[in-house]
Amino acid sequence: MNNKISKYFSVLFVGFFCFFAANAQEISRQQGPQYESPVIAKNNEVTFNVYSPTASSVALVGSWVGGTNIELTKNAEGIWTTTVGPLEPSMYHYNVILDGVNILDPKNPKAMRDGSRYASTLIIPGEGSDIFDVNDVPHGTLAKVWYDSPTLELKRRMYVYTPPGYEDSKTKYPVLYLLHGGGGDEDAWTSLGRANYILDNLIAAGKAKPMIVVMTNGNPGQKAALTEKSSKETLNNGPAVGMGSGKFEVSLVKDVIPYVEKHYRVLADPKNRAVTGLSMGGLQTQRIALANPTLFAYFGVMSVGLLEGDLFGLDTDTYHKEYEDNIEKLKNGGYKVYRIYCGKEDFLYKSVEHLRETLDGYDFQYKYIETDGGHTWANWRTYLSDFAPLLFK
Amino acid sequence: MNNKISKYFSVLFVGFFCFFAANAQEISRQQGPQYESPVIAKNNEVTFNVYSPTASSVALVGSWVGGTNIELTKNAEGIWTTTVGPLEPSMYHYNVILDGVNILDPKNPKAMRDGSRYASTLIIPGEGSDIFDVNDVPHGTLAKVWYDSPTLELKRRMYVYTPPGYEDSKTKYPVLYLLHGGGGDEDAWTSLGRANYILDNLIAAGKAKPMIVVMTNGNPGQKAALTEKSSKETLNNGPAVGMGSGKFEVSLVKDVIPYVEKHYRVLADPKNRAVTGLSMGGLQTQRIALANPTLFAYFGVMSVGLLEGDLFGLDTDTYHKEYEDNIEKLKNGGYKVYRIYCGKEDFLYKSVEHLRETLDGYDFQYKYIETDGGHTWANWRTYLSDFAPLLFK
Repeated sequence: MNNKISKYFSVLFVGFFCFFAANAQEISRQQGPQYESPVIAKNNEVTFNVYSPTASSVALVGSWVGGTNIELTKNAEGIWTTTVGPLEPSMYHYNVILDGVNILDPKNPKAMRDGSRYASTLIIPGEGSDIFDVNDVPHGTLAKVWYDSPTLELKRRMYVYTPPGYEDSKTKYPVLYLLHGGGGDEDAWTSLGRANYILDNLIAAGKAKPMIVVMTNGNPGQKAALTEKSSKETLNNGPAVGMGSGKFEVSLVKDVIPYVEKHYRVLADPKNRAVTGLSMGGLQTQRIALANPTLFAYFGVMSVGLLEGDLFGLDTDTYHKEYEDNIEKLKNGGYKVYRIYCGKEDFLYKSVEHLRETLDGYDFQYKYIETDGGHTWANWRTYLSDFAPLLFK
Repeated sequence: MNNKISKYFSVLFVGFFCFFAANAQEISRQQGPQYESPVIAKNNEVTFNVYSPTASSVALVGSWVGGTNIELTKNAEGIWTTTVGPLEPSMYHYNVILDGVNILDPKNPKAMRDGSRYASTLIIPGEGSDIFDVNDVPHGTLAKVWYDSPTLELKRRMYVYTPPGYEDSKTKYPVLYLLHGGGGDEDAWTSLGRANYILDNLIAAGKAKPMIVVMTNGNPGQKAALTEKSSKETLNNGPAVGMGSGKFEVSLVKDVIPYVEKHYRVLADPKNRAVTGLSMGGLQTQRIALANPTLFAYFGVMSVGLLEGDLFGLDTDTYHKEYEDNIEKLKNGGYKVYRIYCGKEDFLYKSVEHLRETLDGYDFQYKYIETDGGHTWANWRTYLSDFAPLLFK
């Protein structure tokens, strides 16, 4: 038998498996010298390298402090390089700017998408990034689920995180509804926000109760992220418009919550429901709270406050009247936590001051958490890490 | 109340929502003229545009026939452009090559990752792409699930597709185990292979039975895709090595199948189990079949045949002896379908000829499907679309 088989290919298959791996990957590999990027030194300095003998300029923009327009210099091999930092342990994103074009770091397999654009990502290990790192702890299941939204007349996609142990028990769980910001979609809280790993880590440490986390698409005109758009489709999958229409808020209550409570083992009562969101999602959280003053016991409003101006379909007269009409009902509705988060450098800082002053005027109880930084995912990861441990206790 | 609120920001919020969406997206937007890319004309010609006034060369490489090193030309605005095609309705991937660096099309939100590299994707709508498009049909749920693999001493990640209706019924389903190729990981069959949409469409058309599809990580040294690597981790999450060790094949049978049959509503008998894989996964399929001749009733071997040479840990003496020792048991084990697929231009075409000749020598029944093209995802999507309708009937 071995003879029968071995009469073929004794030479042909030398180097076979190199070929095997290379050819199973269809995306062509750039020719050039061997190098790595990014390289994290022991002192947390980070070196970025990009090979391009013919580029006229290579720069870098990164989400760390000072990460704007860092010019790279070319060495004799044609590799452009720069070293930054030391950087604090955290997660960062960055783009290489090659002849004016924002690109991914060609050597870094880790990237994220925010709306229609991509950036490379980088985690500096340490205390500041432990909370969202892929640690050696039990991991929950992250499912992309399509559900029917009669309110928006769409079949829509969302993510549902079920905590470790969900599949092995008959336990019913509380639910956190976690809303993204303008320009984002249902991918945002796991890809940029690392919500699933934050929950894994908080639950493993006993800091958060095991819970289901539902991450919707908050753009009422979209069925799903742009990446899932049919090639035949032009309608009903547009960009992040209509945020002021209030329709997503209605669909969360009429379509999403009933779906989740029917299809998952859920503790279906107000004290086991929480909602929080950032920016556009923080606006939606406020409006959901006011329109449904007894439906949730936990609210988080991140990086947005009380807004003004008739723009993009947000009728602020109506929106302000929602406060006027419903804040007393919300106040007396039995909520347990209402937390507001903002960074000192957030461009919406003044709207948050305005919200606080307004709530104070109504003697409405909340807690305000102010951090450094601005309107960033670094802050939103921190806010989720603060908010989740407060819930369902 | 409106007065109290309106005393702030009457001017500040002019243009607010533009700002809102822009600032919630952290990835910086390139400055320059307005343009789109790719643009699909009615006749299926495709125009690609890239803005870079300072690049010295811009080219394109795409997965269509003739898609190698297409040079773009620069217009007066600094936009480099080229038009290709008309292209047949299908899914393609491509990279822009900007000054020698392979990059994503900066204007295209659709991209895929294969191993450590990224490419932009493009679907030309029509008959050839309908099967994997996001059509207006019920969609199954796609879950990323972590499971324990004592065999590989790792907690590992896989995808589990459950068909439309799974959550709303008590029905038990058959299971297809779907294996990727060298250089790939558990993301490959959904991101490049569009397996979930293929199943959605086949099931909606009544062509395939509703089934669960399990997509594992076939690299025995990896716990999950490189994107999920802990920032602290150096061990146990390496690249696609060890494919010849046979350990993944054991873990599929000892770890994955028991997990799936415990945690999902599964018809747990041979005639409701199928396994297929491409390239490395086709090698694994052969070895799983030989080592477990009565465990599955359906086998698919895609774009690989019988291999030779002691390379990367594949001991081909042992592997060939597996045929010698077990082919009769497999032959008499009650399987219903054994299908082999290969493209005429596949670099492994001869190994497939060798496999067919060997199986013929044993009078082993199988069906061979030969297609145009080579070792490509275009073929693997087609092969899955052919294989899934054969199953569980």
